[in-house]
Amino acid sequence: MSTIQSTEEIFVTTALKAWDQWTSRLSQFIDSLTDEQLLSPVAPGRNRAIYILGHLLVVNDAIISQLRLGESKHADLAAIFLTQPDGAVAELPSIHSLRDDWKALNAHLDTFFRELTPAQWLERHALVSEEDFAKDPTRNRLSILHSRTSHNAYHLGQLRLITKSE
Amino acid sequence: MSTIQSTEEIFVTTALKAWDQWTSRLSQFIDSLTDEQLLSPVAPGRNRAIYILGHLLVVNDAIISQLRLGESKHADLAAIFLTQPDGAVAELPSIHSLRDDWKALNAHLDTFFRELTPAQWLERHALVSEEDFAKDPTRNRLSILHSRTSHNAYHLGQLRLITKSE
Repeated sequence: MSTIQSTEEIFVTTALKAWDQWTSRLSQFIDSLTDEQLLSPVAPGRNRAIYILGHLLVVNDAIISQLRLGESKHADLAAIFLTQPDGAVAELPSIHSLRDDWKALNAHLDTFFRELTPAQWLERHALVSEEDFAKDPTRNRLSILHSRTSHNAYHLGQLRLITKSE
Repeated sequence: MSTIQSTEEIFVTTALKAWDQWTSRLSQFIDSLTDEQLLSPVAPGRNRAIYILGHLLVVNDAIISQLRLGESKHADLAAIFLTQPDGAVAELPSIHSLRDDWKALNAHLDTFFRELTPAQWLERHALVSEEDFAKDPTRNRLSILHSRTSHNAYHLGQLRLITKSE
C-alpha cells in the first residue's frame, strides 16, 4: 500500500481488508472441498455444505440491493437456500454452477466495493428508512459489510467441521 | 443515539456495534447452554463447547495487549485452550469460573473500547512493527476489532450445531 490515504479512507480500507480476508478463507476452503464433500452435512443431521454455499450465495448477492447499488441476481435461489431449510427442495442447482456463481459474485462485489467513497459507505443502507437512519447513522452501508463479513466467518466455522476439528 | 457524531466517530461506532451484536449473540448462546452441553463436542469427534469457550476467552483477552492497553489476564490459559488441542490437558478450569471470566472480560473490553478515540483506533496494534505499520496503516487497532468480531462469529457458528441446525 504505497499511496497516502486519508483517515476516512483508512477506516474503509481496514473494513474491506477484513472482508477480503474472511471471504478469501471461505472461498479457498470451498475450493478445497470435493463435490462429494459439498454434498455431505457439516455434522450428522445438520446442513449440507452445498446448502451453506447456496445460502452464502443468496445472502451475499443481496448485498448489492442492500447497498442500493443495483438488482440482486440470485434472488430466485432464496426459496431454496434461505427461506426453506436444507432438504425442503429436492432439485438444487448444479454444484458446478454454484461454484461459478460464487466466484463471479465475489468478483462483482469487489468491483462495487472499490468504487464507493468513504462518504458513500456512510450513507443509508436499503433496509432502513431515511427517518430511522437520521436517528441512527450507524445503519449505513458499512454496517452491512461488517455484518456479512462475520456471516461468512460464521458459516466457515461450520464448513471447517467437515474435514478438520477447529 | 441522540448526540451528533463526527464522520470518524460514526466509522468507529459502526464497527463497535458489529462487535456488540456478535458478542451478545455469542454470550446469549453460551448462557443458554447447560453445563452438560458445554461438555459435549459441537459435532462427533470435534471440539467440546467448553474448549471453544476457553479458546474465545484466551483470544479475546489477548485483545487488551494487542491494542497496547495493558496486560492480558488469562495468558496462562493459552496452554490449555490455544496452543494445544481439546483433550490434551485433562484438568480444565471449572465451568463456573470460565462463565464468570467470560462475562467479566466482555465488560472489561467494553470499557476499553469506549475510551478510545477514532484517532487512537487507527494507531498501530501490538503485532506489527512501527516500520511495517508505516507501510500499511490498515494494521491498526480497529483491524484487531474486526478480526475478533468475525472470530466470535466463526465459533458461534460451530457452537450452534450443538442444539440446532443453522
